[in-house]
Amino acid sequence: MIQVGVNGYGTIGKRVADAVAAQPDMELVGVAKTRPNHEAETAVANGYDLYAAIPERRELFAEAGIEVAGPVEDLVAGSDIVVDACPSGIGAENKPLYEEHDTPALYQGGEDAGLVDASFNARSNFAEVEGADHVRVVSCNTTGLSRLLAPLQEEYDVEKARVTLVRRGGDPAQTGRGPINDTLPDPVTLPSHHGPDVNTIFPELSIDTLGMKVPATLMHTHSVNVQLEDVPTADEVRELLADESRLFLIPPEHDIDGAGKLKEFAMDRDRPRGDIWENAVWEKSISIEDDDLYLFQAIHQESDVVPENVDAVRAVLGETDAETSIQRTNDAIGLGF
Amino acid sequence: MIQVGVNGYGTIGKRVADAVAAQPDMELVGVAKTRPNHEAETAVANGYDLYAAIPERRELFAEAGIEVAGPVEDLVAGSDIVVDACPSGIGAENKPLYEEHDTPALYQGGEDAGLVDASFNARSNFAEVEGADHVRVVSCNTTGLSRLLAPLQEEYDVEKARVTLVRRGGDPAQTGRGPINDTLPDPVTLPSHHGPDVNTIFPELSIDTLGMKVPATLMHTHSVNVQLEDVPTADEVRELLADESRLFLIPPEHDIDGAGKLKEFAMDRDRPRGDIWENAVWEKSISIEDDDLYLFQAIHQESDVVPENVDAVRAVLGETDAETSIQRTNDAIGLGF
Repeated sequence: MIQVGVNGYGTIGKRVADAVAAQPDMELVGVAKTRPNHEAETAVANGYDLYAAIPERRELFAEAGIEVAGPVEDLVAGSDIVVDACPSGIGAENKPLYEEHDTPALYQGGEDAGLVDASFNARSNFAEVEGADHVRVVSCNTTGLSRLLAPLQEEYDVEKARVTLVRRGGDPAQTGRGPINDTLPDPVTLPSHHGPDVNTIFPELSIDTLGMKVPATLMHTHSVNVQLEDVPTADEVRELLADESRLFLIPPEHDIDGAGKLKEFAMDRDRPRGDIWENAVWEKSISIEDDDLYLFQAIHQESDVVPENVDAVRAVLGETDAETSIQRTNDAIGLGF
Repeated sequence: MIQVGVNGYGTIGKRVADAVAAQPDMELVGVAKTRPNHEAETAVANGYDLYAAIPERRELFAEAGIEVAGPVEDLVAGSDIVVDACPSGIGAENKPLYEEHDTPALYQGGEDAGLVDASFNARSNFAEVEGADHVRVVSCNTTGLSRLLAPLQEEYDVEKARVTLVRRGGDPAQTGRGPINDTLPDPVTLPSHHGPDVNTIFPELSIDTLGMKVPATLMHTHSVNVQLEDVPTADEVRELLADESRLFLIPPEHDIDGAGKLKEFAMDRDRPRGDIWENAVWEKSISIEDDDLYLFQAIHQESDVVPENVDAVRAVLGETDAETSIQRTNDAIGLGF
């Protein structure tokens, strides 16, 4: 059993912890958190050992009546690998801690690519991170783009990808964020960071990305153009993408017009927290014009990287090949509609 | 003096009426409206003769204490040309009325291209509509795209344009519309109507458009890609676009990040109703990658077609050339920041 620690128990960390705990070949050593809040209570309710990420704040947990298993150092020392799910920039601060204990670490997409030995997407470059000490699981949007581009690149060769990412302003619980009633080019200069980030997974791929922010919280929505070398029909693309376990092709008869209905669907299907781990690709949008493929996809910013983190554990430790890991992860968490 | 009637006094009609009244070579015969509301009161307050668009409802105006100059037929008969600014589809119903009086008519972009002899954008095809009886001024988004594509096509030849239109859900006063908290591919199938609509102005141009709807009311925002035959530098594109009177290049030092600040700026400059008649192009977004030009532009759905309607009056009647008309219209309404 692989002993996995999760440092950071917020939006991503709590989901990764649940997914790790569900794996047949992994054991969740525990989770670390900076302060007691409703999520800390949830960790305890789930029976997870809770570690104090900041020793000086340990007494805050005691005051809140929450038992702490020890300092985060104990979690790192007791784990074969740590998933760092701390806010952007904190992962970099934690790096010396992992090095000190010689514990390999996975970071999230908010960290700089320069911090790590390799960036990771299960479908695209699983085998490349074996034995690495510091690996970054790319962000939700880059994960969504990589999953889509991998089969297209393999099957048709990508001439160039051009993507407009219409991004949610914040997560549903991030009540202090905007925009309200506006559409902001963000960044207004090109490219957005997503294109260069895709190049950490596909170094040779030609891709331009533009970002905008809108008053929505549920999911990101991508307007995707991929110019292809070998031009297929739209039906062939549909068949190709339907074979990908982490792409969910929204059937036209589902009558799902946006993220609201997608989330409703996921909750109706008893997905934990209403999570959508897959790219949600509108089947009806898949179109070929000349050598241009177009489609729309929605990306659930809170959860699509969760199965990727689980796979990265096995990839770094050299436990399985990509196909075995992806299938095992999917089966354990119930991915696939 | 050209005698101009305006049939329909809502979002577009009231703005066109004001713009016509401001022209040195035009006289506003009057405006027609279906029922008394705050806009009818405004017409009267402005001293415009008000005609009853639906004879049976004429007494409603009397009840509201609003004097009516006559039925809409009188307006049409007394005008050299009528601007039909009625809701989509009503223009088509009005066509026989204009034919009956042998009065040339301008329709708005919501009408079908098949209804008219020609579609119109002042910058792109002014000379082509002279003498036509029925002319459609293309929609706000198509106007915005045509203004941008015209100089690019003339100067660099357009290989292909690919545009994602992130559309406002409704106008500020359309309180019953959505979406709320969602980003909807709309239409989810390709292309959106905008590409084919641009082809009513530029029949040969290769263009693919994708549409989305978001919870914003102030302006549309376009993510524009134009692949060019003769590739300029970004600075050259900036200079080219800066010379276009109906493109407003947002200077970086203005610190305008979206439609909210754009509208604030327009109101600070005493624009009537806070209107932005120009395409608002983020100067900082103008980028060249390989042979691809990228930029963001915001389009004020309520007003960018207003100067186009004024120019279309002169174009249909053969009164001036494009340059003279555009300059005269701009000067009369105060276009240009």
